[in-house]
Amino acid sequence: MQQNSFAVVAKPGDRVADLSTPRPIIDEDRLAANIARTQAYMDRHGLNFRPHIKTHKIPALAAEQIAAGAKGINCQKISEAEVFAAAGFEDILITFNILGAQKLERLGALNDRIPGLKVVADSATTVDGLSSTFASRKPLTVLVECDTGGGRCGVQTPEEAKNLAKRIHDAPGLSFGGLLNYPKPDSAEAVQAFLGKALLLLKADGIACPIVSNGGTPSLFEAHLVSAATEHRAGTYVYNDRSMVRAGHCSEDDCAMHVLATVVSRPTADRAVIDAGSKALTSDLLGFSDFGTVVGYPEAVITGLSEEHGVIDLSKCGNKRPEIGEKIRIIPNHTCVVSNLFDTMVFHRDGVVTRVEGVAARGLVW
Amino acid sequence: MQQNSFAVVAKPGDRVADLSTPRPIIDEDRLAANIARTQAYMDRHGLNFRPHIKTHKIPALAAEQIAAGAKGINCQKISEAEVFAAAGFEDILITFNILGAQKLERLGALNDRIPGLKVVADSATTVDGLSSTFASRKPLTVLVECDTGGGRCGVQTPEEAKNLAKRIHDAPGLSFGGLLNYPKPDSAEAVQAFLGKALLLLKADGIACPIVSNGGTPSLFEAHLVSAATEHRAGTYVYNDRSMVRAGHCSEDDCAMHVLATVVSRPTADRAVIDAGSKALTSDLLGFSDFGTVVGYPEAVITGLSEEHGVIDLSKCGNKRPEIGEKIRIIPNHTCVVSNLFDTMVFHRDGVVTRVEGVAARGLVW
Repeated sequence: MQQNSFAVVAKPGDRVADLSTPRPIIDEDRLAANIARTQAYMDRHGLNFRPHIKTHKIPALAAEQIAAGAKGINCQKISEAEVFAAAGFEDILITFNILGAQKLERLGALNDRIPGLKVVADSATTVDGLSSTFASRKPLTVLVECDTGGGRCGVQTPEEAKNLAKRIHDAPGLSFGGLLNYPKPDSAEAVQAFLGKALLLLKADGIACPIVSNGGTPSLFEAHLVSAATEHRAGTYVYNDRSMVRAGHCSEDDCAMHVLATVVSRPTADRAVIDAGSKALTSDLLGFSDFGTVVGYPEAVITGLSEEHGVIDLSKCGNKRPEIGEKIRIIPNHTCVVSNLFDTMVFHRDGVVTRVEGVAARGLVW
Repeated sequence: MQQNSFAVVAKPGDRVADLSTPRPIIDEDRLAANIARTQAYMDRHGLNFRPHIKTHKIPALAAEQIAAGAKGINCQKISEAEVFAAAGFEDILITFNILGAQKLERLGALNDRIPGLKVVADSATTVDGLSSTFASRKPLTVLVECDTGGGRCGVQTPEEAKNLAKRIHDAPGLSFGGLLNYPKPDSAEAVQAFLGKALLLLKADGIACPIVSNGGTPSLFEAHLVSAATEHRAGTYVYNDRSMVRAGHCSEDDCAMHVLATVVSRPTADRAVIDAGSKALTSDLLGFSDFGTVVGYPEAVITGLSEEHGVIDLSKCGNKRPEIGEKIRIIPNHTCVVSNLFDTMVFHRDGVVTRVEGVAARGLVW
């Protein structure tokens, strides 16, 4: 983790109101409630749960997710998996097509270190590359990534899924681990149709499919509608954000991350400028036209971000408007990308700092 | 700087084509040409030049800018200034309203360390806060930030500028340093009108105005049209990016930063997925509807980014389309925010790595 020798961010007992800004803060009680509520849902429906650590990148939080009942974790790149393996996690699924000599070598070393490493593939090219690396070492478990409508990676049909599964099954050094998808929201029926059909084809070919992994926070509480799935993956649920409120997944009161910012300028009656720009909130819109919800000022609109400034339109606000020097809290559009900008995360309960965690897997490429 | 103990990024002599992805790379020759061309323009017009280090956050590059003839540097926050002061830079302008006890204390310590620290203010609140800190220590130089149409911070009229300058002039612990603005592009006439009028008002009040600092890369080569200005500030020009090509500031061949990415999936004939998402390219659109220019595939459109994936629409491409495993280069929409995501920057000449620099001021808040 990067050490900023010039600044001690915070220590337990500090008041959040006294923190320098911009600074994302995590409400411990909301965090714990988000973890508990989601795990209870998964338990109720007999689904294994695999939190995606991209949202927080903090081993201590993954440990809390595992302690609550999660079966393993989900990473998006090898470097994240390396950090979490070093922290003691043994069941790690990397949901990415791994290609290229350096990455394959590091994947091999990682597979030697932990028992439960799994990756995905959606093409013969990826499978053949994995096989050429793992034929001569400890076998690797590979799931077939399916595009059930999300429009990102993934084989396009259940037939392709079956064919690629067979290629994995037959490839030296590889073990077929199952099927995986990252769906668009509210698509349980299409997901079930795709995965159910693929399972039938696999069964007809005599290929066992240990895992069927569905994912996403927006439709998390509809995960049980995909009866083909054995597990669900989700990241954002742990902090929640404005996009999850809009998706109906949670309320604003479930958003554990706020970004603390200071009003540094009030050039006009209708304009406030804060010290949180795209290097604190990111430019992720996720379909919104503005950059976050200002807590306590529901009519304030964050209309623009430059790198270190955010511009807020107050024209729809009444007489109560934020003044220069005032600290405000913002619910960001997208919490996962905010985490990725800060080397440390401050946690609090009722406004008093409880701990400061290093965002251990932040900034690691590959 | 963050040390990723799991990955050695690159070393001099490595071929860029062999680097693991995603990875921004800087072309040394383009970088040098950008620095030389801009400095020559400023010299030709007798303008002092103050590069904004937010774009690269690398002391070694600022040293090259100073060696070329720049008079000092521009930072956007105290932490950046601290890093550059520690690296030996003595003329640093922080273009931000500094508010809050911790920041003021650090600003005081920084002012004690270097001779040429300067900040800006656009309100009595900011000025009074600075004065209360600096009344009892080495005086601080403060410029008045003017909003000449950029719509961010700044006093709204030349009269307000004069009044705030007078407040600074009269405030214990502060020295009035001049006027500053961050204009919208192609607004030289309005900038000149505002600043020229403010200078007349200051002169009438007998207040000396040592610096008039104009800024921005998009209209950099029109800086001479603002005759009131004594200096110009710019950051992006050093690397350039897609938004600067669109602004007419440069050509694609002047873009020193490319983001190297690998095609990891070709789910359909018309879709490629790369390993550069919003955590490599950022979501900055800057008015574009897509997320960068794919070098060599001008018809390819990066239509969407998730965190670690970029989705490219190839439907307008001919038969030559990027294949799985192929490395492509992307000119990002906005280079400054890409720098902010990586702990190290790789430089190359003709595809051979020349050096790897730590992005020393990356990730520092405040």
